[in-house]
Amino acid sequence: MTAVMGQDRKRALFAKLGARFGERFSLGQALREQHANTLTWLKREPPDAVLFAESEAEIAEAVKLCAEARVPVIPFGTGTSLEGHVNAPFGGVSLDLSRMNRILAVHEADLDCTVEPGVTRKALNDDLRGIGLFFPVDPGADASLGGMAATRASGTNAVRYGTMREAVLGLTAVLADGSVIKTGGRARKSSAGYDLTRLMVGSEGTLGIITSLTLKLYGIPETIISAVCPFASIAGACNATIAALQMGLPLARIELLDEVQMRACNAYSRLSLRETPTLFVEFHGTRASAREQVDAFGAIARAEGGGEFAYAERQEERSKLWQARHDAYWAARGLKPGAEVLSTDVCVPISALAECVTATRQDIDRLGLLAPIVGHVGDGNFHVLPLIDPSDPAERRKVQAFLDRLVARALAAGGTCTGEHGIGQGKINYLTAEHGPGVSAMIAIKKALDPLNILNPGKIFALP
Amino acid sequence: MTAVMGQDRKRALFAKLGARFGERFSLGQALREQHANTLTWLKREPPDAVLFAESEAEIAEAVKLCAEARVPVIPFGTGTSLEGHVNAPFGGVSLDLSRMNRILAVHEADLDCTVEPGVTRKALNDDLRGIGLFFPVDPGADASLGGMAATRASGTNAVRYGTMREAVLGLTAVLADGSVIKTGGRARKSSAGYDLTRLMVGSEGTLGIITSLTLKLYGIPETIISAVCPFASIAGACNATIAALQMGLPLARIELLDEVQMRACNAYSRLSLRETPTLFVEFHGTRASAREQVDAFGAIARAEGGGEFAYAERQEERSKLWQARHDAYWAARGLKPGAEVLSTDVCVPISALAECVTATRQDIDRLGLLAPIVGHVGDGNFHVLPLIDPSDPAERRKVQAFLDRLVARALAAGGTCTGEHGIGQGKINYLTAEHGPGVSAMIAIKKALDPLNILNPGKIFALP
Repeated sequence: MTAVMGQDRKRALFAKLGARFGERFSLGQALREQHANTLTWLKREPPDAVLFAESEAEIAEAVKLCAEARVPVIPFGTGTSLEGHVNAPFGGVSLDLSRMNRILAVHEADLDCTVEPGVTRKALNDDLRGIGLFFPVDPGADASLGGMAATRASGTNAVRYGTMREAVLGLTAVLADGSVIKTGGRARKSSAGYDLTRLMVGSEGTLGIITSLTLKLYGIPETIISAVCPFASIAGACNATIAALQMGLPLARIELLDEVQMRACNAYSRLSLRETPTLFVEFHGTRASAREQVDAFGAIARAEGGGEFAYAERQEERSKLWQARHDAYWAARGLKPGAEVLSTDVCVPISALAECVTATRQDIDRLGLLAPIVGHVGDGNFHVLPLIDPSDPAERRKVQAFLDRLVARALAAGGTCTGEHGIGQGKINYLTAEHGPGVSAMIAIKKALDPLNILNPGKIFALP
Repeated sequence: MTAVMGQDRKRALFAKLGARFGERFSLGQALREQHANTLTWLKREPPDAVLFAESEAEIAEAVKLCAEARVPVIPFGTGTSLEGHVNAPFGGVSLDLSRMNRILAVHEADLDCTVEPGVTRKALNDDLRGIGLFFPVDPGADASLGGMAATRASGTNAVRYGTMREAVLGLTAVLADGSVIKTGGRARKSSAGYDLTRLMVGSEGTLGIITSLTLKLYGIPETIISAVCPFASIAGACNATIAALQMGLPLARIELLDEVQMRACNAYSRLSLRETPTLFVEFHGTRASAREQVDAFGAIARAEGGGEFAYAERQEERSKLWQARHDAYWAARGLKPGAEVLSTDVCVPISALAECVTATRQDIDRLGLLAPIVGHVGDGNFHVLPLIDPSDPAERRKVQAFLDRLVARALAAGGTCTGEHGIGQGKINYLTAEHGPGVSAMIAIKKALDPLNILNPGKIFALP
């Protein structure tokens, strides 16, 4: 197909979509730019058009029309993804799912619910609070649940409750040919055929567009206790984490803030915490079991050289104790006003975490970069947030070389190039480094399910 | 290819395999029959030959040779699968992996290990006991871990520790073209590309042959308490289970034996338990938390009309208390000596369990069949074991119609046609009933990764 033919087809498609969807289909520049204006550090690549879908049938219809015209479809939730997932490098239609925000069913006895993809995690939890249930996966941002599934998101309490990999019982999705599949039901487990649920979770919109999700829920714990403990070194904090996991303590959250992040937090939130590596821990359980966990963890922390161990049970005291953690992202940004923030992540076996974080900190310091480190250490997952001067291309190159070494270090330790941010556009080369021949298998699957490469092209791998 | 050409190619292949692998390649009838002599109730279909592989490189070599000759390869672990997974409906080579039984690495600090596929779960746990760790997935049979991954096995303590879906961190596999992929590392989570680990888990040998697995391990709990509680009805037992899960009790196992199974157990194990629906429960934790769980569960059981609630902490008393559960399978067989036992399973949302089990029991009784019911009720998963007179074809037809209704009942409740046994040959039609257009997506993936259809053909779906 020549470029001219392509433009003609595109024009014809847009005319059709405009006629069909009215003002829910837009070519307006502001809206297009808004749909590429995300938290990513990568170059913004706006789509040609934006369509607000309101039902599965509409999605199927739009995908069929786009497929006929060979025009890409890029699903869009809240735009909080970090690796360029919603960019449109080959143009196309950004399919905005934010209006599909209905909670379709909540089954209290089964501890599950079914939602449309545009429901955000906070909206779901607001709805569930009244019946004493909650959805645990918490990536920080108030992302849409469809987007969280598509990027296999996780966050602070994955150590206890798992990631979107574990949270999704089943889903429905529109495939590249406009057909609709239902990948699982409401059973807690199934051995019926290939695990299409897990294949769609983390496929970043490249295999299908999620139109509904059935999610596992949990009872809000009787007691929540938050704690904070400073350590003399990264190693001490990591060793305390390992010891707690080995003895089977069901930690709900265990977060590490390194000394640079602690300094940022003190400045931003006007605190006077010790500026050393610090663990922020949360315990869920009955009152007795939560307190038992606190005592056990306190003993472990002492044995690993932890400093003053503070904990709190009442909501407002817990918020105060964890304020540094809650404000961490904005505190990091505050370290260098006007800087661009590159939020990256890797994940390693926990035994390698201390060495990996320490070497990363040394690398940062050697380069003279400013980059706090925050880790979901129970999973061996940590984030580095280099603050880059946008007017300094040399600094950006320096950071790129730093990222290469960060990933190489994680892979050498048996880890992964991303624990929870996904590949998107930013980590395509790292995926190949990590999976080698596995990438060929992924591409074979992509080609089998989306032979025209219209679903979110240019993400996860570069197709020839 | 004509049948004659096919036979010629097969003969040439077998000559090559014989030359290459010596006495580890066999055409002997006894060995071939042994490799189809499994626990399945389906007709035995022995392979043409058996090859004992001893390394990943050998598997790759054998698969390449078989692919060239268009001859099927059927991976074989211990032969304990139930739906005809190791049958050879199109002939071919049974690839016996039982000699690949080395534990390659155990990482205590990371709570993981890497094993060859022929290691059985009991062998692994024997090895781990000394360092205080264990591998939790327990399907009853001492199956190979490769086979357990391939069929997405689970069992009694999936309610607490998950199934093979959650247990496998990563694996290596030989694909149909002889290439080797590594699907994951040792990180606890990853969002790097498609989840090939979960795609291989449960693919029943149709997408690749697993050559090693990295598995999550757990610390052996400080305290284990076993308990038994009879109920007046299935509904009472199920409601107690729901209440316990809703309050977040971390039950390690919760098993339901119905009145027919209890009668079988009394007869087989010379016990005098009440012949009513009975829950067998196990609690793991610190001493304090395990006892707290027992108390909480005892209160729930009383509220739901449970009878005498007995529990024990010492190993030998626990074994005695749970003897009926441990002997359940053989007790069921003992109900009708000489009968063929068809072990089937479905899984439903737990709120539908009481109704589904009760309706199933009524169906069994109406048909005049003998069929105990045993359930992993925390997951909504239950087994029915019809005992069939092999000389009575009418009874077999009756059972087939019963199975159709059982699956229809499970699907109508939002459940699945199999919670843990897999599709194999026995449930191909039910997969279509459950997944509809999803089966087309599965077949597209199968064709993309195994275009010649040589990996365990005739399982999961019937390819045209």
